[in-house]
Amino acid sequence: MKKDIDIFMEEQNLDAIWISGAAQNNPAMVYFTGIHHVSEADLFIRRGQEPILFYHNMEREEAAKTGLQTASIEERYPFKKYRQSAQGDMLKAYALLYQEMLSDLGIHEKTIAIAGRKEVNIVYALISALQALLPKVHFIGQFSGSVLNRTRLTKTPDEVERIRQMGQVTTSVVGKVADLLSSSPVNHNVLMAADGNPLTIGMVKSNIRRWLAEAGADNPEETIFAIGRDAGVPHSTGTPTDVLELGKTIVFDIFPCEAGGGYFYDFTRTWCLGYAPDEVQQIYQQVFEVHQEVIRSIKLNMPFYESQALTCRMFQEMGHATIQENQNILEGYVHSVGHGLGLDVHENPFAGVGSTGMDILQPGVVFTVEPGLYYPSKGLGVRIEDTVYLNEQGKPEILAEYPYELVLPVKAG
Amino acid sequence: MKKDIDIFMEEQNLDAIWISGAAQNNPAMVYFTGIHHVSEADLFIRRGQEPILFYHNMEREEAAKTGLQTASIEERYPFKKYRQSAQGDMLKAYALLYQEMLSDLGIHEKTIAIAGRKEVNIVYALISALQALLPKVHFIGQFSGSVLNRTRLTKTPDEVERIRQMGQVTTSVVGKVADLLSSSPVNHNVLMAADGNPLTIGMVKSNIRRWLAEAGADNPEETIFAIGRDAGVPHSTGTPTDVLELGKTIVFDIFPCEAGGGYFYDFTRTWCLGYAPDEVQQIYQQVFEVHQEVIRSIKLNMPFYESQALTCRMFQEMGHATIQENQNILEGYVHSVGHGLGLDVHENPFAGVGSTGMDILQPGVVFTVEPGLYYPSKGLGVRIEDTVYLNEQGKPEILAEYPYELVLPVKAG
Repeated sequence: MKKDIDIFMEEQNLDAIWISGAAQNNPAMVYFTGIHHVSEADLFIRRGQEPILFYHNMEREEAAKTGLQTASIEERYPFKKYRQSAQGDMLKAYALLYQEMLSDLGIHEKTIAIAGRKEVNIVYALISALQALLPKVHFIGQFSGSVLNRTRLTKTPDEVERIRQMGQVTTSVVGKVADLLSSSPVNHNVLMAADGNPLTIGMVKSNIRRWLAEAGADNPEETIFAIGRDAGVPHSTGTPTDVLELGKTIVFDIFPCEAGGGYFYDFTRTWCLGYAPDEVQQIYQQVFEVHQEVIRSIKLNMPFYESQALTCRMFQEMGHATIQENQNILEGYVHSVGHGLGLDVHENPFAGVGSTGMDILQPGVVFTVEPGLYYPSKGLGVRIEDTVYLNEQGKPEILAEYPYELVLPVKAG
Repeated sequence: MKKDIDIFMEEQNLDAIWISGAAQNNPAMVYFTGIHHVSEADLFIRRGQEPILFYHNMEREEAAKTGLQTASIEERYPFKKYRQSAQGDMLKAYALLYQEMLSDLGIHEKTIAIAGRKEVNIVYALISALQALLPKVHFIGQFSGSVLNRTRLTKTPDEVERIRQMGQVTTSVVGKVADLLSSSPVNHNVLMAADGNPLTIGMVKSNIRRWLAEAGADNPEETIFAIGRDAGVPHSTGTPTDVLELGKTIVFDIFPCEAGGGYFYDFTRTWCLGYAPDEVQQIYQQVFEVHQEVIRSIKLNMPFYESQALTCRMFQEMGHATIQENQNILEGYVHSVGHGLGLDVHENPFAGVGSTGMDILQPGVVFTVEPGLYYPSKGLGVRIEDTVYLNEQGKPEILAEYPYELVLPVKAG
């Protein structure tokens, strides 16, 4: 949580964090600014001080809405001056501008972590040029374990509420999709659209996009709605021209966020239209059992990789290959059982190969539980996913409840 | 254009470009891969060779859809091996992995430009760690004038067609908004919604979002729909609770892109509902005159800053303050007359303070023409913007025509 940032900065000997880029679709920035129509800004967080946001004049109104201490770049650092000093060399000009800004901020001889989602070439070029001008600055790029990742690992009640609201949006759209499928007529074993042609995955997805937009949500990483063999490839998004055939597994994984790049929700159900073959029912039951057991076994301050170990153990006992034995498998249990979620759809805590000492299920973490089994060669895949909040009492709460029925009834053909 | 990339790489002594991040919402990557549900990949472009895309197993189907030469990271570089060698140090582990990848690619002693939109802290940390392992590599971050910017500066007919199609989507949504406003009843000088309450900017924007989503477009940077004083602040997006009062300027600036972060369109009209006060009409006429003259005066291979110089000269003669005299002004003509547009809403060529020797209006460039005048103290702002393609014959083509009427008729009160 934000209140801990000074402690984490002190532990890691950081004097300042410099976040650049937009105040939208840029998690590190949005964490401090909220979502605003600011396309380019620089936020400095100096240890023990209030953050300060440097904005461009045209975006002064939007910058003011952040409620942060702000300053105009044009007013304090008119670009023409630096461009003249640099004799037209753009990179040099910007380096001179930021050299003065860092000096004014009193961090021209300090340790500064850079952050933000932006074109990496621009930042790398600028930092390299600045380093030559300010040899005493220690610029660092933090990886997993960064101060911002640690700070964002645990959520405030306000953040949890926003994730919960995205969960409401998500499950309400999932319900609309279920209604659409259940109310579509069946012809020769496939669902039909109102126009007399088969309903396709492309048409379902177009409805999903529209319903999410109507609810004010963004869908930056698309939706997975994949049937049959595609359902057996975890990140296959589905083939738009595929028809919806009865008895095939549909993996429906939906992860929208607040418009402009805010808090996400992440949710998956697996459906079979009309009926489920025995093999699918059995695999679904196994995945459901693991899903329930993973949530049941969560203990406060447990390393999240223990959930992954439990999942692999259970699936192995059921006779499935798992990623534990071989990172390169394509059938069986092939991914990790969950990941943290917030302003990124994947953030700490991690349960899989990227899990480290900081990935502890402490009060305030929000994470997914999403076991799955994949057999593309058999034309099937199953995943069940909920987003879970570990509250202050150490109790896991699913943030948006939704039924777990595998079979989605369809209209009598 | 892509066909020129080897020449530009040779001119700048680059052996390879390493683009990392997702194959969506990441212009540098999407330029080569198209838009796909690939959340994390590495694309290497070695001079004179076909690009190669390293993907993660779960995304193998989506990676294959790029049509590029591909390779699985898990298969060739199983992470567990590097993690063990690095004794659990994640950054070290990734550095060892990429050290081997760069060696296999034969670029472990070469000059490599990094690119891609991604968390800059991760890339900076990784490159710093890699540099220690591969001291002979010269990593560079390119700024304006980068090989990719130069390559993307001119568009192929296929790219122009995609921008033109986004123009169709954009102007059709603008037409729907005009119809909505024109058909809304008027009460006490403001437009009313169907429910008997005043129509608000928030409601108009919610319709814009829905219509764009229905057309399969994304709207990553929101829409500007600002009335009165807000219209006088170029990047104010408008106040959601504002009502739509007759006789006030509305600046409607809309810049959607293909879903998943593809080609943009950028378009602005200024409207007055019902009638326009004399002062507004006069200012509108001045902006329109400049808009027309800027397009008329375009000559093949002209530096784009000449359009900005012309705009400032014309507005000065009309008695307005311009950014030419003072970069820090807030009233008058306060921005640049245009920017290139493609996979980024702002890209080369630039006309304003960022303009350099490469910002030439050569055949194939696509750019905006968007003069404007802003007087927030008078409660008004005017901007008129079209997206223009300079074709092979050196003729500027507006990619989506739309009427220029200032006054939008409303229903008789």
